[in-house]
Amino acid sequence: MNSQEIYQQRIENVLDALLEKGEEPLCESMRYAVLGGGKRIRPLLVYASGEALGVNKDLLDAPAAAIELIHAYSLIHDDLPCMDDDDLRRGKATVHLAFDEATAVLAGDALQTLAFGILSQPLHGICATNQLKILQILTASSGAAGMVKGQMIDLYAAGEILTEDQLATMHNHKTGALIKASVLMPTYCFEGNADNLTTKREKLAEYADAIGLAFQVRDDIIDIQSDTETLGKQQGSDSASDKPTYPSILGMDAAKEKLFQLHEKALSSLSSFGREADLLRQIAEFIVKRIA
Amino acid sequence: MNSQEIYQQRIENVLDALLEKGEEPLCESMRYAVLGGGKRIRPLLVYASGEALGVNKDLLDAPAAAIELIHAYSLIHDDLPCMDDDDLRRGKATVHLAFDEATAVLAGDALQTLAFGILSQPLHGICATNQLKILQILTASSGAAGMVKGQMIDLYAAGEILTEDQLATMHNHKTGALIKASVLMPTYCFEGNADNLTTKREKLAEYADAIGLAFQVRDDIIDIQSDTETLGKQQGSDSASDKPTYPSILGMDAAKEKLFQLHEKALSSLSSFGREADLLRQIAEFIVKRIA
Repeated sequence: MNSQEIYQQRIENVLDALLEKGEEPLCESMRYAVLGGGKRIRPLLVYASGEALGVNKDLLDAPAAAIELIHAYSLIHDDLPCMDDDDLRRGKATVHLAFDEATAVLAGDALQTLAFGILSQPLHGICATNQLKILQILTASSGAAGMVKGQMIDLYAAGEILTEDQLATMHNHKTGALIKASVLMPTYCFEGNADNLTTKREKLAEYADAIGLAFQVRDDIIDIQSDTETLGKQQGSDSASDKPTYPSILGMDAAKEKLFQLHEKALSSLSSFGREADLLRQIAEFIVKRIA
Repeated sequence: MNSQEIYQQRIENVLDALLEKGEEPLCESMRYAVLGGGKRIRPLLVYASGEALGVNKDLLDAPAAAIELIHAYSLIHDDLPCMDDDDLRRGKATVHLAFDEATAVLAGDALQTLAFGILSQPLHGICATNQLKILQILTASSGAAGMVKGQMIDLYAAGEILTEDQLATMHNHKTGALIKASVLMPTYCFEGNADNLTTKREKLAEYADAIGLAFQVRDDIIDIQSDTETLGKQQGSDSASDKPTYPSILGMDAAKEKLFQLHEKALSSLSSFGREADLLRQIAEFIVKRIA
């Protein structure tokens, strides 16, 4: 296994151990939603950022799990009939179809609580003040000023014509905020004052901003390219469709150029790091080159 | 104003300051759901428990607000069409009717995040370790092992015949857990070690268990008595209806006797406290005698 696969297996085990096993629909639906699927990009970023900073892996499990639980809860709620009304997620029936809508609402609610719960437990090796910093990062990035704000903008953006700035604002909140949190939480996985990390934290934040936006540009490109294959439409023919995308605003060539520039920016942000940041570099490459 | 009213006004001001003012539907729906209504029992209990322990009021604002935000988020989601499908809450249209379902889901999500967010900010006068304790109490009481578990039991209990123990389990989770959290959080609103509080904490926990259950027994009695008035049904005629209640399981007389005993138990738990616990005593009386 390469190191991405090792960490993917690790987070799967951590999540499996955290989620109560039981026959009640609440336990079952929470496990169903979280386990056995997903690229685990956010936990991978937690471990990769921790590697770049020399943090003991054991200290990264809690923030890695917490950010994936937040992501998982947001997907359950996003898939609800009143939101995106999706039937499939990661190749399986969405939670409200596999169980029912009420269970999906509550499973999402409980996963959010669990995320903050595991970061509130004593984490040996991280002082309480830094644990609160980690909680501040995660609450700020996932709440009304972060991810949820992005989901609201997205809801109201369908059919609207957005500028590139408005599109970036939506994505910075909807996906960028959690990606940035994944990279920044490990900068507080220490005992005591971590002031010597200030410069590294700034560089990691730049890296996160670049890959966060790249993630979305690539998503938009994949959407159109898979349409081309499956529907026989021309690339870029989604420009007039309901949801604003980078190719629809910029055109496909400029969107690809933007993706290239964001990749360059992500790599240059890491230039002061040595081999310890290689996993961060690999993830950046994965994000801009992935096909699904 | 009596001290209950003073604290009700105080928490209203605290919540108003915490909730961002803005014209976006997310801000508006969050404020709509939280402000201008509700008995504020949980924040009152935070302030009252803090009074009993001699905690500076300023240190109680964050836990008082956080617990009310958790309560408010749970009401928004409980009222959704896929849950209880309620049209009215505190005399106003429920959030999914005043706005829309998607906004209601997201407003609830963001209120939950905000609750944990305000407890993650530096709170001067409470050390970081105790802040994490407060967060542990709130996450444990509101998540899959607490309130959400109670909501799930409630969902699946309609039409079932429950024993008194099963009914107590449901209510202990659905409402009792947050009531207990309200009373216990102030026992950590201190700098440093609060070990000298162990006995007081145990007594306050007993008090909270008693009033938590009393709250629900009283709710069940009110339901039936208001049916008697509005529908002209006999008291206790709901015994055969869909949702299990204390009067339906025990009979009305035994339910009232149980309420009396719980009130006695709440007061005896406070016997080692002096006048500083008078507000806790008043709240117990309010809970067992309220008519709405």
